[in-house]
Amino acid sequence: MPRNGSTTRTTIMDAAEALILETGFSATSVDRVIDRAGVTKGTFFYHFQSKAGLARALVERYAEHDLNNLESNLARAEKLSRDPLQQLLIFVGLFEEAAEALTEPYPGCLFASYCSEAGLFDQDTLQIIRDTMTTWRTRLGAKIEEAMAKHPPRLDVDADSLADMITVAFEGAFMLSKSLSDPNVVSQQLGHYRNYLELLFAEAPSAPA
Amino acid sequence: MPRNGSTTRTTIMDAAEALILETGFSATSVDRVIDRAGVTKGTFFYHFQSKAGLARALVERYAEHDLNNLESNLARAEKLSRDPLQQLLIFVGLFEEAAEALTEPYPGCLFASYCSEAGLFDQDTLQIIRDTMTTWRTRLGAKIEEAMAKHPPRLDVDADSLADMITVAFEGAFMLSKSLSDPNVVSQQLGHYRNYLELLFAEAPSAPA
Repeated sequence: MPRNGSTTRTTIMDAAEALILETGFSATSVDRVIDRAGVTKGTFFYHFQSKAGLARALVERYAEHDLNNLESNLARAEKLSRDPLQQLLIFVGLFEEAAEALTEPYPGCLFASYCSEAGLFDQDTLQIIRDTMTTWRTRLGAKIEEAMAKHPPRLDVDADSLADMITVAFEGAFMLSKSLSDPNVVSQQLGHYRNYLELLFAEAPSAPA
Repeated sequence: MPRNGSTTRTTIMDAAEALILETGFSATSVDRVIDRAGVTKGTFFYHFQSKAGLARALVERYAEHDLNNLESNLARAEKLSRDPLQQLLIFVGLFEEAAEALTEPYPGCLFASYCSEAGLFDQDTLQIIRDTMTTWRTRLGAKIEEAMAKHPPRLDVDADSLADMITVAFEGAFMLSKSLSDPNVVSQQLGHYRNYLELLFAEAPSAPA
């Protein structure tokens, strides 16, 4: 059970994150955050030195959660098959499965919010986003290289940009899902990414039925 | 040659759009816009009733430009081949070609900016974004249906979500390009989309070399 201090800090962060996903960072004033979180200004400033400090804490938490998802699904995929191509397809499939369970359109991505208002953040805060995206590229790119070595791709592709494609699918699909109020866009787009990987590395594709 | 009034209006809109792509809509005050555009507040309010009126005019202009790109590249592709699959591949290739010419990371997408701060806009303004994305889905989806009828796809796919994939590639790649300061992301991702369409509809794929 967390101590009360850590619960209050989390309450403030959750309120701020939800507000940022609704109206962006600039419009998320400290007053709106304390109002939504139901805390006093004194409590806010006990936990965070400034709005910039809150911004930094939020993106650190978001990145940590994101990288945990990456690593845990990679580990699961590596347990579920010995073959790197199958691991890759399972990895994408696990995210697709989670996205299929969504019943509401995706509320948005904190990274995308910060990126849309990039001029308001310091370079250290933006660097956390860059590092997270680069980690996805590196980790998934290495798995793609393994798959390529065993299953030569049918077209000449670059492992890094093929790895980037999952970040692109997430970010683009979150945006489209939110804009069209359609909860299915994310799983559909991950499904297309998985199809592409499958077709790209298929050794002896059969003719269509 | 435009009359002076239309030039000034364009100058204000260009300044506002650039500011929104840098720091978002909320942080783009009328004062910052007139400062960047080099006009007086009186001139601003002669052209726009309010900041909301400016927001609406900007998204209308952006959507018009976006749909012109869609229609003109569809028309070009339809002139360059008689086959709907080839038209589709040429269509994506034309956007890829334009993206390859970029030397700077993509400055961002106005639709993505508005979407990140969606709570600040009226429904009519957001509807323009929805309508534009739906038009891409409908126009490209119809071309995909034509291609499917002539070239049965190797996997069971849905034309609408396959059409959405170009919007997802643009939006996701703009965001990644901006975040990583890498101008190549957009053309690379469009290249992967084209590869996927090619593999999906390939009638007799050859073995890898």
